[in-house]
Amino acid sequence: MLNKSKIEVFFRNLQDKICTGLEEEDGKAKFIEDLWVREEGGGGRTRVIQNGNVFEKGGVNFSAVYGPCPDFLKKEAGIGDSNVEFFATGISIVIHPLHPFVPIIHMNVRYFEAGNVKWFGGGIDLTPHYIEAVDTRFFHTELKKICDLHNATYYPEFKKWADEYFYIKHRGETRGVGGIFFDRLSATSEISIEKRYEFVKAVGETFLAVYLPLVKKNRIRSFTPENRHWQLLRRGRYAEFNLVYDRGTKFGLQTDGRVESILMSLPPITHWEYNFIPLAGSPEAKTIEVLKSPVTWV
Amino acid sequence: MLNKSKIEVFFRNLQDKICTGLEEEDGKAKFIEDLWVREEGGGGRTRVIQNGNVFEKGGVNFSAVYGPCPDFLKKEAGIGDSNVEFFATGISIVIHPLHPFVPIIHMNVRYFEAGNVKWFGGGIDLTPHYIEAVDTRFFHTELKKICDLHNATYYPEFKKWADEYFYIKHRGETRGVGGIFFDRLSATSEISIEKRYEFVKAVGETFLAVYLPLVKKNRIRSFTPENRHWQLLRRGRYAEFNLVYDRGTKFGLQTDGRVESILMSLPPITHWEYNFIPLAGSPEAKTIEVLKSPVTWV
Repeated sequence: MLNKSKIEVFFRNLQDKICTGLEEEDGKAKFIEDLWVREEGGGGRTRVIQNGNVFEKGGVNFSAVYGPCPDFLKKEAGIGDSNVEFFATGISIVIHPLHPFVPIIHMNVRYFEAGNVKWFGGGIDLTPHYIEAVDTRFFHTELKKICDLHNATYYPEFKKWADEYFYIKHRGETRGVGGIFFDRLSATSEISIEKRYEFVKAVGETFLAVYLPLVKKNRIRSFTPENRHWQLLRRGRYAEFNLVYDRGTKFGLQTDGRVESILMSLPPITHWEYNFIPLAGSPEAKTIEVLKSPVTWV
Repeated sequence: MLNKSKIEVFFRNLQDKICTGLEEEDGKAKFIEDLWVREEGGGGRTRVIQNGNVFEKGGVNFSAVYGPCPDFLKKEAGIGDSNVEFFATGISIVIHPLHPFVPIIHMNVRYFEAGNVKWFGGGIDLTPHYIEAVDTRFFHTELKKICDLHNATYYPEFKKWADEYFYIKHRGETRGVGGIFFDRLSATSEISIEKRYEFVKAVGETFLAVYLPLVKKNRIRSFTPENRHWQLLRRGRYAEFNLVYDRGTKFGLQTDGRVESILMSLPPITHWEYNFIPLAGSPEAKTIEVLKSPVTWV
């Protein structure tokens, strides 16, 4: 049987493990922690790392909140006017590396329940400033392995979902090379809610295994001021996506969430330059080409 | 009688005058110009200045577009299902100075017509990184003078409108010290549309007169790396406002406008730092205090 306290504990412990793994990889910066309390019930543990050897800014946030279900959530969950309680817990991660060849990563795993509704959601996706086919294939292959262990439909379905979700419509570009994205995974006749949970746990637990190899490999490469400049421009696109389209960000800002926890996802230093067009045939131009038409990586 | 070609010519000439004035003040950088054509009718003249002595990035954009009125505009204008044409022209300015003590400025003046609807809109507002009461009083006093020459109700009404519009709800802060903001100014029994146009012309023509004195006075002040750091953090708020709330930006992105012209408003270099809290009693803390509760400056 699904037990919401156990899910909360799982996510909290996962936050600990991931923070420890990232600190060890960084070798210099430590996460600072802010505990916050939600007036209507619950709270969270925001953890931010800044100015490290390899992580310029990153957040690994845990929260578990509950209380009377707000109207808009009842509407979303298709619950009538009853006085139902909700419970939501999860962790959310965004890492902006200092090094232009180390990709930005994002992960979110979460659980929501209200009345008879029980949903899991989340995903992992990668935003390299420079797309390297071999790294991207590694990332997608690892995600596909995890998915395939649970259900053969997961990877193709959730990969497509990520390509569609992480799309910067006004630029005609995806945010990065995608990954997997899923939402409102409930019990079906074929997949129990316990099996959904097993899958979400596996996604959460794969974070360090899919990200650290890419960090280790790329943090030792040398780079030029031009590479750094390009990284800061790509971060501008990241900020555009998060502020204009990201549902989690919009949801948080609209519901008076803790602003500093929500916007920890924004890049530390960002450039916007008018009409920057990379040289034809350059690695920068090739990156844009890939972002304009999602690739089948595995 | 109002003549839309004359309005277009007025705005185009105003763009020239403002660009010349800003280039002279800068003394180094020149505007680059991109002409663009709108498939359905009309086009624009985007002008951007970058990496100047005093202007780090700024745009002064002119456009005049027309054609069959899109459905959402008909809806906004309360026009039925008729095959009506629309015409819209205006200029839009955002200037991000290099110097932390020189304020960011924004101005927009515009005209829209479709069927029997004729509307003027626009405004000027100031976003100092450090709020100086004397500068802000000068700015508001000059705007009030222009307003009062046309109608005694304008300044109080449009000042309030600016405070309400340029508000970053999730931060509980105004974007800057406001100014004036107005929209859908049409003919009334007391004010003809020609009189509305005279007012909008006066607002446009006051741009250099209200901004250049603040530039000249503050560009010669010395500043520290801490002042610059604060400036970059304040620019983060500017980007948040423009991407999350600004109607012009949203409108442009949703209607597949020219992205580089729309987003010229975004700051050149921007910082987001987790939970930065200025020292109590510092000029930075005082600036935040003012932004949290709009002031009656004149």
